[in-house]
Formats: sequence, structure tokens, C-alpha cells
Amino acid sequence: MLIVKKFGGSSVANYTRIFNVAKRCIEDYKNGNDVVVVLSAMGDTTDDIIAKTEGLMAEAEKVTGKKRGEIPKPPKREMDMYLSIGEQESVALMAMAMNALGVPAVSLNALQVRMHTTSVHQDARLTGIDAERIHGELDQRKIVIITGFQGVDKNGDVTTLGRGGSDTTAVALAAALNADKCEIFTDVDGVYTADPRVCPKAHKLDEITYDEMLEMASLGAGVLHNRSVELAKKYGVTLVVRSSLDFNEGTIVKEIVKMEGTLISGVASDKNAARISVVGLEDQPGVAFKLFQHLANHHINVDIIIQSIGRDGTKDISFTVPEDKVDEAVKVIESHHTTSLKYKSIDVNTDVAKVSIVGAGMMTNPGVAAKMFEALYDAGININMICTSEIRVTVLIDEKYLQKATQAVHDKFF
Amino acid sequence: MLIVKKFGGSSVANYTRIFNVAKRCIEDYKNGNDVVVVLSAMGDTTDDIIAKTEGLMAEAEKVTGKKRGEIPKPPKREMDMYLSIGEQESVALMAMAMNALGVPAVSLNALQVRMHTTSVHQDARLTGIDAERIHGELDQRKIVIITGFQGVDKNGDVTTLGRGGSDTTAVALAAALNADKCEIFTDVDGVYTADPRVCPKAHKLDEITYDEMLEMASLGAGVLHNRSVELAKKYGVTLVVRSSLDFNEGTIVKEIVKMEGTLISGVASDKNAARISVVGLEDQPGVAFKLFQHLANHHINVDIIIQSIGRDGTKDISFTVPEDKVDEAVKVIESHHTTSLKYKSIDVNTDVAKVSIVGAGMMTNPGVAAKMFEALYDAGININMICTSEIRVTVLIDEKYLQKATQAVHDKFF
Repeated sequence: MLIVKKFGGSSVANYTRIFNVAKRCIEDYKNGNDVVVVLSAMGDTTDDIIAKTEGLMAEAEKVTGKKRGEIPKPPKREMDMYLSIGEQESVALMAMAMNALGVPAVSLNALQVRMHTTSVHQDARLTGIDAERIHGELDQRKIVIITGFQGVDKNGDVTTLGRGGSDTTAVALAAALNADKCEIFTDVDGVYTADPRVCPKAHKLDEITYDEMLEMASLGAGVLHNRSVELAKKYGVTLVVRSSLDFNEGTIVKEIVKMEGTLISGVASDKNAARISVVGLEDQPGVAFKLFQHLANHHINVDIIIQSIGRDGTKDISFTVPEDKVDEAVKVIESHHTTSLKYKSIDVNTDVAKVSIVGAGMMTNPGVAAKMFEALYDAGININMICTSEIRVTVLIDEKYLQKATQAVHDKFF
Repeated sequence: MLIVKKFGGSSVANYTRIFNVAKRCIEDYKNGNDVVVVLSAMGDTTDDIIAKTEGLMAEAEKVTGKKRGEIPKPPKREMDMYLSIGEQESVALMAMAMNALGVPAVSLNALQVRMHTTSVHQDARLTGIDAERIHGELDQRKIVIITGFQGVDKNGDVTTLGRGGSDTTAVALAAALNADKCEIFTDVDGVYTADPRVCPKAHKLDEITYDEMLEMASLGAGVLHNRSVELAKKYGVTLVVRSSLDFNEGTIVKEIVKMEGTLISGVASDKNAARISVVGLEDQPGVAFKLFQHLANHHINVDIIIQSIGRDGTKDISFTVPEDKVDEAVKVIESHHTTSLKYKSIDVNTDVAKVSIVGAGMMTNPGVAAKMFEALYDAGININMICTSEIRVTVLIDEKYLQKATQAVHDKFF
């Protein structure tokens, strides 16, 4: 079997953990498997690197006598060049650890593998992987340890993949190598029917479909980053989400799962949500398009959207954004107030939360949404906004009811 | 003009120094020159990396319950992979600093340039440099900042060049790019007629030949590493040794220098020397060859060698080694005592020092050596051993007379 195993930064944060990961990989290796390991940078390394560039820029202020805003920012290309040393450190140390345990291992960075990406620094997309070198090393019965998160563009420049990048690296490698499975090790032991901190009755799922996982991830039940799940779906890579702290089986993410007799796979809750209402928008063609285009240009992701007729021929548009993007979103809208967007006022509410049910089963079972609304009604919780997809129903509620709502909905379905 | 400028680790040890180097390079750039910068890792970074691998190996002892000697050492390939992040950090930060000062700059590591080397990890030799990418960046009027010390072998693996590696990188780049000069920045402002700490009357040389520099370097007046000077000589690269702390002109190292009316260029002194005498060696053919072959196999450099007839058909061989290699050298000899080397005893003296005069002028001027011996005789200093080359005379004396001898010889010639 060829197994790709991905470990995040906390799993390799110190020497003890590095050896734990090494032993874990060696076990698979000694059972006759080919093992490819993908690592993030150790612990806080990436933060340290960013802090150092901040230190450099503080010095730049002193040296130039200018304010920070007047000094050219560190080029993203150079940030990627700098950031990529973090993973190079962890893979080199891991290779040394495995060799110390008597197992041949070799580390490779993105330039050595050639993990081809687009040239968008800090947010590059993988476009292809040369598998030759990796297969060559595996054929020599070595464990191959590869830097996550990074790539190389057509000019030979180092790129990074943005958030969740190492998961994406692992899945892409699993696809390119035609691996039997891709194990993503995290600090939880799988995907749960709800966040156990919010809903103590939540239980771990044995299996979940790609689509369900995508909906869960996008709703803040963020065990896996969406890009990696999308990639796994596209190439049919069997993903396993499991804990680096224990040896439990974890949750398998794949195309079709056996029915467990439940309509939904899980209840996702997310308090990192805020509602913005743009009130009294002039009702011209394209006004909604313009509004969301402006936000997209600033990379602000919008979730639930509701449009309603306002007074005097105007309309109101409400939508949710992540809480930490509220200020920026409001600024963006205000900056277009007198030009492309004419409106009366903006109303913001950050004391809201999202609760969602996700399940491939609901496609063929009408009434699932109604059952959720019933659970919330019974619990006396008011619904602000509703948004549905084929396999998910999301409601926006007051943040203070988040736990109560999650438990009520979970109880109703499980 | 195309100028290659090399700065060592102490010159980029903190943000302030990084900006000082940046400004210095930008000055050349703004005067219309093409500028290529070669950097070592910041300050103690390389030591820190080595300390971290030591930490990992200490953990390995705990994990395996074995002693250090029983655990496989970190593979040199992985050490190089790890070590190379040091320079990648300094070049990325330097590129950011220059950009912050409004000048376009780009950093390149050895894999991106393709600094081809042999596959001998930790002691690789440069075999070729692809200049295309660098010329492309220079054509766009960017300052190009390149990692010193590292290379890439035919497998695409990262290598390092061993001691003095960054100097070698700079000279090799200057040769490959056909640069007009290669400036090596150090903490001294040039090459002196003697070590100013030993001989206060020493003065800076404006010019010195490659051969003289080589002799000076090999005698411990180590401003430049021999490999870089040899390379500069081979490709006719004009070297400039100058200080990163001031703007003095420095010393130019080139093929032919104008005569300054002196016979010698400098007096080199080196107390890092020890004498080993192998007494009563069985006088068989090839015994000297075997002795020095064994030492060479352990990478122990031998300097002055004297062979004399001993008693009873045996012979004595005395030679000098660097002081820190004495124990290893003695061990090596002892390990062959009963096999290929038969001798009576080994005698070691570490309280010795070397004083040398170096000068291309002495080739055509007989009597230079005699003049040196006269100076030492006048100062009442006994000579233990003598060794001469075409452009140098070295004597071994008691270490306690080092300063006195250096001054006496310096006074005689300057």
C-alpha cells in the first residue's frame, strides 16, 4: 500500500513529537507499505518568520524616516522565499530522526519534487507534480518526507499555497502518486456530528462524503480545508482524518458512504459570523452584482445573502461575513457610497451565529429543513436568516443561543 | 560595471546591519552598476542549526535508550538540507530591505540559480553556474541576492561547500558572470603586512598577487579562504578585500601588482601550529608516503616537513599540523604502529608558532631568506624548522617569541 501521511505544525513542534511522528510512520513502513510524509513548519515557526519581517519593516521606518504605509511592503515573492524555510527545517529534522531510528528517509522540498504551481505568491494553486523523484526514492525503500504548503512556479520561484496549504499538498501528492489513502493527522480524532465542545452528545462519524465534508468545512467545523477536500473529490483520493495523539481509526472521507440510518451527518455551528445589512439601496440593475464584486475584490467571503424590497423603490440586502472581516467589508461599501452604490445606511450585527445541518441524505428526503426549524421553534429560538444548498441547511440565530440551538438540532436528528 | 559583493554572517547579523549592507549595495546600483550580492547566514544561525540537530540527537538517545555512538549520525545530505535555510533567510530579508528602500531586488537560492556542485555533502565543489536567470534579473535592473555556501548536485539535492564557502560562491559567480570585480567584505579593511594585533607597525597593502595571498591565507592570515583565491586566480577574477564597517579602499588581489619597492608583501604569524616528531622510523621504502597518506586520509593537513637520519638505520620525521588536529594525528599514527608504520616513539610540541615572509619579489632576489634569519638571530630567537616555497619562507619558533619575531622580521623588511 502507498500511504500519504500529513502532520501539522503542532505535531512536529518539538523533538519528542518529531520522534512520535517518526515512529508512527516507521510502523507503516515496517508493515511493508510505501510511506510519503507531508509536514508543516514546526509549531510557531511561521509566526516567528512573519514577526521577523515585521521587525525588518520596523527598522525600515527608522532607516527611511517614513511611516509604515509609505514604505513598499515586503514583496510576496520574497515572503514565500522566506516562509518556505519553515517546512524545510521540519522535513530535514524528520529525516534525521527517522535515520536515527535506523530507517532510511529522505527529505525533499517543493523545488526538488517540483510541485508545480501558479505564480500567485501566498495563494498559489497546484498545477502538477513530478512523481519521478518520489517513486525513485520509494523504490529504494526510503520514507520520503516532503515540505507541505509550498510549490514552485514556472520561473523556478518558490510559492506558498495559502491557508490549509499542507493538506492540499498531501492530497495532491496522494493523487499524483495514486496512493491508497491520504491520512490527515490533526488534534481531533475525526469528524463529529457536532462540535463536542458545543454539543457533548456529539459522536464521531466513521465515514462522510466529500460533499458533506465540504459543507461542514465551509461552516467552520474546520478539520479540513475546503481546497484539500475539493481536490480529494476531484481525484477520488480516500482521505482519513485522524488524531496524531491516539491510534483511533478516525473518519474516512470518500465519494459514497454506507448509510447509517440518519438523514444528516452532522450539525455545524459557527459563531465567527456577522450580519451586514445595506439598507435603502437604490434599485438599479446590477446593484447587487456591484456590491458583491467590490467585496470579492477585497477577498471578503460572503455567506448567506437575503434581498428584500425596501421602502420607496429601494431594496435592502443583508449578508453574513466572517466576524474579523466586518470592519473591512463596511469600509469597502462606504468607499463606494457616492459612486457605484447609493444607499441610506449600513446596519451591522456581530452577535449572531450560524447553525447548519449537513447530509447527503437530505437530497432524497424532503422535510429535513422543516424538522430543523421545528427543533429550533421547540427550543424557543428565533431564526434571523436561512440559507440552503442541496445537502445543507443553515440558519442565522442570536449568538447567545448557539449552544442551545446546536444541542436541540442534534437531539432531533441523532 | 558588474560588481559581485559578498558579505559574511556578522555583516547581516541584525536588521540594522542588513540595512547598512542594503544601502551600500544600492549606492553601487544607483551609480549605474549591475550588482550581485552573495550572503552568508545571519550571525549565529548556522551554529543554531547545528545546536538544534544536537538537540534532536539527544532526544534520539532518550527515545532509543542507546548511546550517541550507537545511533546513526544525521546524514550529511539532510544536514545540508537543513543548513541551507540559513542563507535563504538572509537573502529573503535582504531583498525585502532593498525593496523597502525603493530598489527592486530579488533573492535566489542555489537551486534557483543552479549552482552546480559535486555530490560530496558538507564539502562540495562548484562545477558550474547557470548564469541565465541572474542575467535576466540584472537586465530588468534588479539587484540579485544569492545564497552563499550552498549548491545543488546532479540529483537536485542541496549541498554545502564547507569552510569559506560563501567566498567561493562569490568568486565563482564573478567568474561565471564575467564580473568586473568581486568585493569580499570582512571585519578588517584589507590585507596587512603583518597581523596588526601582533605587529602594531603593520600597514595595509594596496595590492597583492593571488600567489602571495594564497601563501598568506595558508599561513593563518586568514582574511580569505584559499579555495576562493585559487578560483579567482584560475579565472582571473579581480578580488577586493575590504571592510563592511568603513568605506576604505581595501586591498586588491590580482595577477600582477605594481612593485612597491619592497621584497616581501607581508609577515604572517600563526600560533595555531604544533610539531609532531615520529622518532626511530624503520627505514623502508615508502614509509614517509605511508605516514602522510594515513594523515591525508583523515583530512589532516601537514605543513613543514623535515626528515633526518636517526640512529641504527632508522630515521626521524618531524612535521607541523594545526594545533586542534594534534590528538587526531597522533591517534592515526598510533593506530598503524604495529602494521604499516614501525617506529620507536612520538614526540609532540604544541608550544610552537610559525612566522613567514611572503612576497613575489623574493623569486628574483636571492638573500631574502638570509635577511629573515638575520633578523631572528639579532632578536635572539632560535629557529626549530625551516620551510620555503618560491614566494615564501616559513620558520618554526617557540610560541612565546611569536610577537617578538614578527616585529623583528617586519622591522627588517619594511
